[in-house]
Amino acid sequence: MKLQVTQENLSKALSSVARVATSRGTLPVLANVLIKTADNRLSISATNLDIAITHHIGSKISEEGGVTIPARLTQDFVSSLPSGVIDLFLEETKLHITTEKYESTINGTVADEFPVMPAIADGKTWEVNSQLLKNALQQTLIAASSDEARPVLTGIYIHTHNQKLYIAATDSYRLAEKMLTTQKTDVELLVPAVAMQELLRLIGDTDTNILVTHDEQQVQFKLNDTELVTRLIDGKYPDYRKLIPKAFEFQATLSKHDFVNITKVSSLFARESAGSVTINLNKDDGVMSIRSVASQLGENTASATAEITADGSITLNSRYIIDALNCVQGQTVVFGFNGKLEPCVISDPNNKDYLHVIMPLKS
Amino acid sequence: MKLQVTQENLSKALSSVARVATSRGTLPVLANVLIKTADNRLSISATNLDIAITHHIGSKISEEGGVTIPARLTQDFVSSLPSGVIDLFLEETKLHITTEKYESTINGTVADEFPVMPAIADGKTWEVNSQLLKNALQQTLIAASSDEARPVLTGIYIHTHNQKLYIAATDSYRLAEKMLTTQKTDVELLVPAVAMQELLRLIGDTDTNILVTHDEQQVQFKLNDTELVTRLIDGKYPDYRKLIPKAFEFQATLSKHDFVNITKVSSLFARESAGSVTINLNKDDGVMSIRSVASQLGENTASATAEITADGSITLNSRYIIDALNCVQGQTVVFGFNGKLEPCVISDPNNKDYLHVIMPLKS
Repeated sequence: MKLQVTQENLSKALSSVARVATSRGTLPVLANVLIKTADNRLSISATNLDIAITHHIGSKISEEGGVTIPARLTQDFVSSLPSGVIDLFLEETKLHITTEKYESTINGTVADEFPVMPAIADGKTWEVNSQLLKNALQQTLIAASSDEARPVLTGIYIHTHNQKLYIAATDSYRLAEKMLTTQKTDVELLVPAVAMQELLRLIGDTDTNILVTHDEQQVQFKLNDTELVTRLIDGKYPDYRKLIPKAFEFQATLSKHDFVNITKVSSLFARESAGSVTINLNKDDGVMSIRSVASQLGENTASATAEITADGSITLNSRYIIDALNCVQGQTVVFGFNGKLEPCVISDPNNKDYLHVIMPLKS
Repeated sequence: MKLQVTQENLSKALSSVARVATSRGTLPVLANVLIKTADNRLSISATNLDIAITHHIGSKISEEGGVTIPARLTQDFVSSLPSGVIDLFLEETKLHITTEKYESTINGTVADEFPVMPAIADGKTWEVNSQLLKNALQQTLIAASSDEARPVLTGIYIHTHNQKLYIAATDSYRLAEKMLTTQKTDVELLVPAVAMQELLRLIGDTDTNILVTHDEQQVQFKLNDTELVTRLIDGKYPDYRKLIPKAFEFQATLSKHDFVNITKVSSLFARESAGSVTINLNKDDGVMSIRSVASQLGENTASATAEITADGSITLNSRYIIDALNCVQGQTVVFGFNGKLEPCVISDPNNKDYLHVIMPLKS
């Protein structure tokens, strides 16, 4: 292998893929990136066996070839080099990286040792705008579980319902659902949330169409010169729609900013009680107040002006309230529930595409 | 105690002092701040028994009094409140904190339980500009030791020499010395570096004179409305001046930016060898090059244009080089040494007030 690339392109490619490389597994080669020439371009790949990312860059290739080299060292090294042309030259498994002022040799291993994700054959293909998907992921990922004991809940449920594309996530304590767009292709995918975190990072500010291709086992997201492939989670996603209340006995409409502030202040006094705070709605005063008690440290009541439909109270985890409010767009939010033991819903009164459900704590 | 303060002033006072409060010690009251009225002002204090910080704020006092309350909770709480007037009212040891929308009670303990640092009586007093001191501390603190086995080296040596005020620090592997100003008052203080880190934080952007008062055991730094008192370290500081070479057989003058870059890149290949890199000076080529070898991963040579007096080489810890270069001001640096086993010096050719010495590694 002998070629020239620019420092900017190589550094960008390495930063796209290297995060997936891992030195924690049992397979040492997974801490490496695979660098190889293909179709007059250079491809850089990394995988942790669940997720694989490949980034293609333009390069001036004199000799074809490939090698795997340590991901972290190579990324740190290339990102430290001055911008300009870099010469890469492979001698057996030693990769020589040369610029005007830097001469470096990185010891690699043969490219054949690198595990390759199986190709997606005969899959369905559809497109979605990258910023639309990014936005939806930012509003739902927080609700996915990280508990591997119930693998289904560690996934993001991307599916169509009545010819609309939805993304949903739930850890059984809370649920977030976003309707993205109308879509004719029927889809039902359960994608690991960790893979979607990586996709979110890859999207960044890129505004383009993402090509999604999937079969029964895997899904690929293709974003310009970058491809992310991830395995799908096996299992039946819970029928979450029946859990979402349609109407509310108790409802408050208030400034999101006020709601965030009074929850944050109350949460300081809820550290002893695992975040438990009690929300009280007072119709006549037009006030939502949040009360928290720390038996040792003290107690707090914080209140905000709100439009209330009926007096009521419910006890929730303050962290879940703050997470939910961070996901809702718009300046005004509606908070509704039907009783102390029923799920409550936080949503934007001016945008019905998104809702966030929180299960109450017993008080 | 009954009084009014502004949220801005109380929050600033708490953020000045609360970092010193600690919940790790055996004395639970040290996790608290002492709030008490004195001379028509409110004073907020915290101490870890080595360092004490007190901040005074203006307040409208209706009833005198004092109490100690949890530092972290109070700081987090007050900083979350909206700006404006806060009412404080003490009922036994319960402090009621009230604003228009927030009502809070924080459980405290009686003020008498709070340990007070002894007063400094009959001490020497002198003044130094806060930004001058801040600058000097930023250039020297990095060289102080954190190893309690040799307490003297965990100190910053503030002293006069030939009617000039110096600050020096060394961990025996490296040494930083800064001349601040001419000064007639004779001074010899060994101040814990951790206390000077706190002082640095308190100074921030404040440009004023700091009043320094000290006796044999303690030193106080008074900065506007804030006072920091710390114990002094007992012991004789090493006679470091005799270790500093006055002339150099091998010397390189180069861009600091280049020197930082080639050291950083080389350090990536020096992780296996505890940061060990070898600097080579080549007079004829006018090049300083740095070489590092990682037996497993690979090797690197990085070079920069430099004005060289004689060919030579020395092996150093790359982290110490980067630390030193971060301390030197100016765009050009001089790097000089007299042999593989002799200390090297990094300094600014245009400013003789500061120098940084690094001991070599055996290569």
